[in-house]
Amino acid sequence: MAQVEKIAGGVTAAKGYAAASAAAGIKYQNRTDMALIYSSVPCTAAGTFTSNVVKAAPVIWDRDIVRKSDGKVSAVIVNSGIANACTGELGLSVCAKTAAAAGEALGIPAKSVLLGSTGVIGMQIPVDKITEGARKLAASKAETLEAGTAAAKAIMTTDTHHKEIAYQFQVGGKTATLGGCAKGSGMIHPNMCTMLCYLTTDLAISKHLLQKALSDVVTDTFNMISVDGDMSTNDTLILLANGLAGNPEITGENEDYAVFKKVLFSVCRFLAMQMAGDGEGAQHLIEAKVVHADTKDHAKTLAKSVIQSNLTKAAIFGRDANWGRVLCALGYSGAPFDPENVDLYFAAGDQKMLIFTNGSAADYSEEKAKKLLSNEAVTILADMHMGEEEAIAWGCDLTYDYVKINADYRS
Amino acid sequence: MAQVEKIAGGVTAAKGYAAASAAAGIKYQNRTDMALIYSSVPCTAAGTFTSNVVKAAPVIWDRDIVRKSDGKVSAVIVNSGIANACTGELGLSVCAKTAAAAGEALGIPAKSVLLGSTGVIGMQIPVDKITEGARKLAASKAETLEAGTAAAKAIMTTDTHHKEIAYQFQVGGKTATLGGCAKGSGMIHPNMCTMLCYLTTDLAISKHLLQKALSDVVTDTFNMISVDGDMSTNDTLILLANGLAGNPEITGENEDYAVFKKVLFSVCRFLAMQMAGDGEGAQHLIEAKVVHADTKDHAKTLAKSVIQSNLTKAAIFGRDANWGRVLCALGYSGAPFDPENVDLYFAAGDQKMLIFTNGSAADYSEEKAKKLLSNEAVTILADMHMGEEEAIAWGCDLTYDYVKINADYRS
Repeated sequence: MAQVEKIAGGVTAAKGYAAASAAAGIKYQNRTDMALIYSSVPCTAAGTFTSNVVKAAPVIWDRDIVRKSDGKVSAVIVNSGIANACTGELGLSVCAKTAAAAGEALGIPAKSVLLGSTGVIGMQIPVDKITEGARKLAASKAETLEAGTAAAKAIMTTDTHHKEIAYQFQVGGKTATLGGCAKGSGMIHPNMCTMLCYLTTDLAISKHLLQKALSDVVTDTFNMISVDGDMSTNDTLILLANGLAGNPEITGENEDYAVFKKVLFSVCRFLAMQMAGDGEGAQHLIEAKVVHADTKDHAKTLAKSVIQSNLTKAAIFGRDANWGRVLCALGYSGAPFDPENVDLYFAAGDQKMLIFTNGSAADYSEEKAKKLLSNEAVTILADMHMGEEEAIAWGCDLTYDYVKINADYRS
Repeated sequence: MAQVEKIAGGVTAAKGYAAASAAAGIKYQNRTDMALIYSSVPCTAAGTFTSNVVKAAPVIWDRDIVRKSDGKVSAVIVNSGIANACTGELGLSVCAKTAAAAGEALGIPAKSVLLGSTGVIGMQIPVDKITEGARKLAASKAETLEAGTAAAKAIMTTDTHHKEIAYQFQVGGKTATLGGCAKGSGMIHPNMCTMLCYLTTDLAISKHLLQKALSDVVTDTFNMISVDGDMSTNDTLILLANGLAGNPEITGENEDYAVFKKVLFSVCRFLAMQMAGDGEGAQHLIEAKVVHADTKDHAKTLAKSVIQSNLTKAAIFGRDANWGRVLCALGYSGAPFDPENVDLYFAAGDQKMLIFTNGSAADYSEEKAKKLLSNEAVTILADMHMGEEEAIAWGCDLTYDYVKINADYRS
């Protein structure tokens, strides 16, 4: 196996990428609310977007560009505070004007500028502020790791911390880098979340394989997390590749492709878990792991059902080993199984407790279970004893703060 | 149309029915926790049960009896506090012993006694307490309205009030009565809720038509409510008919059948709405009404998606007219539509406000919307402008108290 190494940084870790952040005052005051990611060389782009029928204007804008076979991308402009969703023709015109302003300031075609928005649905973005912000970003971009981190911070909404990661790996005798940043943290649900995630690499790879790797990896990472079951209008995951690593372009599913895909999986899983653990109001990252299921689909369905159960999520918040709710959530998932043959465990770190077996409660200590569930990251493990398939889904607990955040999010 | 009249009472309103309640100390102390519903004449029985793969022991017990073509029912014994779910062989033996004790005390076959349980999953019911409770119930049963009300109270868990209703109607020249009681209030989700609901009528009707009417009515009433998206292991809806009204037995889908079905719909809708509005921690009943949808299935899918959206529920708790979340929930429901053609309204009482039209926000006052959303019952109306189908779903807001109740439910 080729050498893979985690390194510092995020979207600016790979060769040729710059970033910037700016306080444009779009909705938030006294904080940065716009970010730029820029590549000195036009990039091949891959992307996955929300499957919500209601798509935000920037999603419509980006999809058009990413899906074109010859669509090269040089920059991404993102704003937080207002989602530019359910904004009609006016919302689309804000996209065109933002891209035009950024393109002019950066000396690139408007159609090579991707856009992302996150925040309140239904409100219009003040066009003066976002175009002025785009110009500020262009003027202040820098190829430093700090600039990448600042961009990761500017796209946050109710996130409590920024999320970024980077890996270096060897491919075709060259060192390539893949980095990225993401934001959550409400309206997070499988099949794309209210998440924005931007990944940058200097790898040389064909557009077809870039998209294939991304689409494959998404199904087991971002599409396996849920914070609240609400699928956003704005979900966007973009992967840019500018080829500056100098490796022979990957055009087939060879060993280089396998190395890249493995690194991509690690990056996406890390950012997905960060998003789940930093769900609105969350105190716990919940990992639901289903093993020995009969089919992969059933394994995924079962794991997702557990992390989406409000009652399970509330029980974990209360550090209550209320395994009945877990079994109940498995039961209504739609995947068939015999409850008598399921073993349930709670786990955290290197601890693992059997709590349900042979159709009823195992002999375990409630006190020890409560202690185990006080860990920040807890695993609910279901052994179905039916086959060889497994799946992992990630979510978070349901807390007072989730309700508080969402009862007065707009005010 | 035959005369239909709402009358006082619940499960004992119809001729020949008695009820009782008892404090058996199964889990709760200092309150009643067991109920009996009894008919002096063996009843034809219909029922619908949870579709959760994990079924509680009393669900398994009841289904066997209700599904038999000649299975007559004379009594129902219900306990609150412990759900007798995920309790293996021991749980099933508790059912058999409870029915045997009740049968002996009432002088009826054990297999004519239905059982219902609600409460904590996974805990075993103390068999001495429940059999002793069954004997107490048999000894104290009475044909009074008060006894019916006492039974409705004994089956409550986190419900804040009991739920009962009764109607009288004319059929075949005779006066018949249909009454019932129900309990919620967490783990409530379409396709049967954690609900227990018992309906009693003195109508004479064939078993086939009794079940058909119940199954039809359930799809537009109980299966259209959701409190938290969690489908219980214990959901049970039982409808008993003892024939004492003296009407010619209904054996075909004639006018008498139509009258009965209409009354049954009113009773089920009332109890379903009561359950939704009394969801755990709820401050609001939320009604989602979808009109002018292209198909009935899409109308239902859209309406259910709105009442299940945690973000919409939290916004209503905050009296925040955050219609973007409603549109978003419609958008990820799976039903196709064009957001540009949807009109959204908030309504309460005789007030109705247009808030979204032509693809973006209507010109409405946020202040007035907040005032409207301060009503206890609010309607979210979506006009799809696609066809002639409509559907209504009922839910409740997501509050601090929901989290509080479910974070320490077991303790």
